[in-house]
Amino acid sequence: MAGEVIMVQSADIIVRASEGTWDKTPDGNLRRILCYTDELMMVEFAFEKGGEGWMHSHPHVQSSYVAEGLFEVTIDKRTEILKAGDSFIVQSGLRHGVKALEKGRLVDCFTPHRADFLST
Amino acid sequence: MAGEVIMVQSADIIVRASEGTWDKTPDGNLRRILCYTDELMMVEFAFEKGGEGWMHSHPHVQSSYVAEGLFEVTIDKRTEILKAGDSFIVQSGLRHGVKALEKGRLVDCFTPHRADFLST
Repeated sequence: MAGEVIMVQSADIIVRASEGTWDKTPDGNLRRILCYTDELMMVEFAFEKGGEGWMHSHPHVQSSYVAEGLFEVTIDKRTEILKAGDSFIVQSGLRHGVKALEKGRLVDCFTPHRADFLST
Repeated sequence: MAGEVIMVQSADIIVRASEGTWDKTPDGNLRRILCYTDELMMVEFAFEKGGEGWMHSHPHVQSSYVAEGLFEVTIDKRTEILKAGDSFIVQSGLRHGVKALEKGRLVDCFTPHRADFLST
């Protein structure tokens, strides 16, 4: 729309499994931004066996799909074991974290996009 | 928060691959709502070989992760072949569709949630 301010533009709207840059996360895992708009960002996280996504919270709503592996997932005070094909959602501001019981991958979506992932 | 209006409440925030109800889509594939809040909904689509997701558009921003199979994906005037691990994002209002070249599954996220998927 004319005059509309576009804050964020994805590098591409189609991303291959072989593309993108893996960055180290503060908690020692790997993170790869897949594709995004202002409103929605898809990010892949890779964990070695024993890797932990520390308990944390953020204002973004997050969905996570277990693409590979076995994870101990904690959301607020609830902890469950999830395997490939399982999924979960985290409301804005709710504390959550994961532990990889096997090497694995999570595909997360965030709304709005994680501006903090673009600036680091 | 006291007095807050909750429009939509997910059945659960953690969903197993074996749970949920598969519903037939108008274009003949299967759809299963995974988990959602007002702001974000994760939905799994299953296609037999040759199954088509008709070209369509919606105001929701959509991300799609190819969990299994091989898909011909069209977004606006661009068509590409995507395999497991590939992903794409569709801006609000942009026409898009898929054709399953093999039996497969897509994990889509929508923001805001697809109220039309809850009412059918």
